[in-house]
Amino acid sequence: MQQNLIFTNDVEVAIERLKANMAPNMTVYIADVNTARFVLGQERLVVIPDGDTGKSLTSVCRVWDALEDFGATRHSLVINLGGGMVTDLGGFAAATFKRGMRFINVPTTLLGAVDAAVGGKTGFNYNGLKNEIGAFAPASDVIISTRYFDTLPVEEMKSGFAEVIKHALLSDRNEFLRLLNHDFTAPIKHDDLLERLRRSVQVKVDIVARDPNEQGERKALNLGHTVGHAFESLAMKRGKPVPHGYAVAWGLVTEAVLSHIILKFPSEDVHLLGNFVRDNYHDFPFTCDDYDELLDLMRHDKKSRNGEITCTLLATIGDYHIDQTVTPDDVTAALDILRDHLGV
Amino acid sequence: MQQNLIFTNDVEVAIERLKANMAPNMTVYIADVNTARFVLGQERLVVIPDGDTGKSLTSVCRVWDALEDFGATRHSLVINLGGGMVTDLGGFAAATFKRGMRFINVPTTLLGAVDAAVGGKTGFNYNGLKNEIGAFAPASDVIISTRYFDTLPVEEMKSGFAEVIKHALLSDRNEFLRLLNHDFTAPIKHDDLLERLRRSVQVKVDIVARDPNEQGERKALNLGHTVGHAFESLAMKRGKPVPHGYAVAWGLVTEAVLSHIILKFPSEDVHLLGNFVRDNYHDFPFTCDDYDELLDLMRHDKKSRNGEITCTLLATIGDYHIDQTVTPDDVTAALDILRDHLGV
Repeated sequence: MQQNLIFTNDVEVAIERLKANMAPNMTVYIADVNTARFVLGQERLVVIPDGDTGKSLTSVCRVWDALEDFGATRHSLVINLGGGMVTDLGGFAAATFKRGMRFINVPTTLLGAVDAAVGGKTGFNYNGLKNEIGAFAPASDVIISTRYFDTLPVEEMKSGFAEVIKHALLSDRNEFLRLLNHDFTAPIKHDDLLERLRRSVQVKVDIVARDPNEQGERKALNLGHTVGHAFESLAMKRGKPVPHGYAVAWGLVTEAVLSHIILKFPSEDVHLLGNFVRDNYHDFPFTCDDYDELLDLMRHDKKSRNGEITCTLLATIGDYHIDQTVTPDDVTAALDILRDHLGV
Repeated sequence: MQQNLIFTNDVEVAIERLKANMAPNMTVYIADVNTARFVLGQERLVVIPDGDTGKSLTSVCRVWDALEDFGATRHSLVINLGGGMVTDLGGFAAATFKRGMRFINVPTTLLGAVDAAVGGKTGFNYNGLKNEIGAFAPASDVIISTRYFDTLPVEEMKSGFAEVIKHALLSDRNEFLRLLNHDFTAPIKHDDLLERLRRSVQVKVDIVARDPNEQGERKALNLGHTVGHAFESLAMKRGKPVPHGYAVAWGLVTEAVLSHIILKFPSEDVHLLGNFVRDNYHDFPFTCDDYDELLDLMRHDKKSRNGEITCTLLATIGDYHIDQTVTPDDVTAALDILRDHLGV
């Protein structure tokens, strides 16, 4: 997978350079109702509804129809400007229009910048299932900046930061320790955060390069997500959704405990992580009465086989092991310890 | 693009071998109303409407919904059994379900066997435009046989044969001369036809291998199609559709004449081709009053740029040149000569 990454807060300059290079016969922007304001005045702009309900086949058709109406061809360019919803859905629409147009992702959220916009996964929700339809189709270029973050709600920043933590856990203890000092209440230090993003995204890029279609090693990026997705799905089912990154943060602690139980991951690092999550990702909405349902969701995870619960686990920070089977008893014990940590 | 091709009339044996190798957790067959009879009795079968009108987003959704209902996962297998419509549409549905399941194509028409089922183009019609939405997604395996051809209408056989002729024109004069002896009124000689298919498909495979995403050389396969698509579209617009291969056959003669005008393609071969097409692809439904509309359609071909008409042309059989610009006067002259040949 070839994907050119550009880290800059001069987004317009970067876009103009890429366009001068590609010489598309037209450029079409895709944004949602929140991010459209960043590109108003563009000649060709498709605005789709925001949020998970907007990530639908109806929105995909809206993009296809607009591309038709504009007369877009294989020599045209799509620029997806928004969070993960826009880059996932706009990427899918572009990748399938006339069997594939070039597209550039400009993520506007921290979560989008460190995760969704990079690595080539595109798709939309279908029949109530997240990202049920999609394709592996990389953006030709991803422009990563922090300039849209000043107006992001702090919950959005925290949500994205959980993936930044995950990348550090997969790669570099010093970076992990550095991240633990992050203060969400202080104004954003753009230069420093852009450097953190550069390091964080590189972890994903390196792993994806070795396994673009998720046949093996890419599952490393699933760290925190087997348990995290179960939290996210259960909260969704109850009509009280939690931000993705909050679920991942709780999932990371749970899977760090599992890593300790199964691979002797150092308890010191479990505690450091647990304290950071306790301090920043509170309001954990589950009790021990929810364990059975959570375990059931883990057994039905996209990546599980034969009803077994499998996770990516760590022996130490940076030393990850994919396809680790864990027992329901292990998970139950880890959830207890998570709740202890969070004080709930 | 990796695609395993199997030439055999023992289709069931081939399928069982592939399944034994892949060990999918379930197998789902996709067929249309005509080809479903070949796989009745299969536990999981999705039947879609036939023909170009069935090649719709509605049919794609029908496949996605069925895959959901069956509980298909990334470890499941789809087998597309049918003509180009089924392999194109079923391939797209499989390639996008959970971001991609494996699928096998079993073409049941000559056109499907030598063209649609091989090479990774998938898609469906959208807003009245052919194959407007799609993806480059190769079947893992294609089982090519002649066993479904005995009951094909002769028009279907002729339609597919035009692509067989095209492949010979792109590669091998001796094979071209051999094909000119084909007698559509005689019973099918399965062993001989399977050998012709093997040679024909290899031409496409070799070209696609060098340019899977149609950035350059793959346009060679467009031989006969710039003009042929114009015939096909105009006939469609008038509500009197012609078989794809008939339009291609007429397009091949027209582009052979253009090849003679521009690249000195030998007139002897123009005549051999012209006579074969006259004898087998009659009922040409156009007159000189249609030239302007045909030229206009050629200017809007998917592969044209800046309103110029571009074709793949031949200097000799086997020596093809892509991206050749032709003038309206050249095309007009070539259409006159085509009509002379056909005696209309």
